[in-house]
Amino acid sequence: MADDIGAAFAQLEAVVRDRLAAGEAGASYVAALAAKGRGKIAQKVGEEATETIIAALTEGDAALTGEAADLIFHLTVLLAERGLGWDAVAAELARRHGTSGLAEKASRQP
Amino acid sequence: MADDIGAAFAQLEAVVRDRLAAGEAGASYVAALAAKGRGKIAQKVGEEATETIIAALTEGDAALTGEAADLIFHLTVLLAERGLGWDAVAAELARRHGTSGLAEKASRQP
Amino acid sequence: MADDIGAAFAQLEAVVRDRLAAGEAGASYVAALAAKGRGKIAQKVGEEATETIIAALTEGDAALTGEAADLIFHLTVLLAERGLGWDAVAAELARRHGTSGLAEKASRQP
Amino acid sequence: MADDIGAAFAQLEAVVRDRLAAGEAGASYVAALAAKGRGKIAQKVGEEATETIIAALTEGDAALTGEAADLIFHLTVLLAERGLGWDAVAAELARRHGTSGLAEKASRQP
Repeated sequence: MADDIGAAFAQLEAVVRDRLAAGEAGASYVAALAAKGRGKIAQKVGEEATETIIAALTEGDAALTGEAADLIFHLTVLLAERGLGWDAVAAELARRHGTSGLAEKASRQP
Repeated sequence: MADDIGAAFAQLEAVVRDRLAAGEAGASYVAALAAKGRGKIAQKVGEEATETIIAALTEGDAALTGEAADLIFHLTVLLAERGLGWDAVAAELARRHGTSGLAEKASRQP
Repeated sequence: MADDIGAAFAQLEAVVRDRLAAGEAGASYVAALAAKGRGKIAQKVGEEATETIIAALTEGDAALTGEAADLIFHLTVLLAERGLGWDAVAAELARRHGTSGLAEKASRQP
Repeated sequence: MADDIGAAFAQLEAVVRDRLAAGEAGASYVAALAAKGRGKIAQKVGEEATETIIAALTEGDAALTGEAADLIFHLTVLLAERGLGWDAVAAELARRHGTSGLAEKASRQP
């Protein structure tokens, strides 16, 4: 499972970086959004977060999964436009939840 | 890079699921939040999305990375409380961006 | 000033209620939005809140005022669709901030 | 009704401006929040918008009214910290919805 997740995020980030680099000449949604400025990318992250929340409270699994994917997509654009990526976020998550989580699990085992 | 990202997300999800299963007796933040109801988890996702947006517009790289990690953490709780996980989101991302991204890259290479 | 504010909010609410009552046959934006369900109205409130935040951090006075008006408009629709209005919100604000604010001001005066 | 709404908003704004002017020496919530910077005020607006959305979808009338009041309160702080107020927002609302709304109503009457 971890392999597929990592591959999907890395692949998504590669696509987004590629399209940001290509710019508007590449005629991509990512480049067109980035051309409108960081505020517009941030706005999309806010919109998709709102849609994710609403889906979690009122819709089915497929809708929630789809909205979460939309949110991750736009968050990838927001990070990439700032020159950041999922490796830094993953490192922070591992720092916060990785070791302590493993330690907690280990401590509960006989 | 993909390996580290996948490992961090899978590890985070395992920790969150573990704590949800342990419930409030486990005295964890995750269980206490879940005990307040899905609306409260959704609220945290909204708060962290807002903080991520503000960090993207006004703060440095470490702050933005940290807020994105907070957002991913609470999104993991929201998904897990619904019985969903990152594998489903990753599959959706791969479906949307994986193949087309690879195809697009290939088509541009000589 | 208070007269103009009250008139604008009451007028807005009257227009929104009128259009909700007319339904989609009235061919209005409000009725079309309401026909998509409460979740869609809530989503618009979230979007406009995000745009207001971004305008406050990165744009000029006219843009911020315009986004705040958009937020108030959609919040009016959200309240009206639930059968609620600005009188109830104003009563709550008066209860929380009216008397105590006046009392605090009075206590600081000689 | 319009009188009470206008009075509540004008009173709220006066209290907020008063506390912003008093600064942290006034030991008020408003001044303490403003001292943390515009980003923190914006964050509170985002949080309260999220809570309003969730209340609209999952809670009763009193909760929704209360969250809407919280949102208006923090939006007042956000506007006031930028030197703006409800008169400008009301003027924009009147410009957008006032005349056209009245005109539309009139045109539908015999």
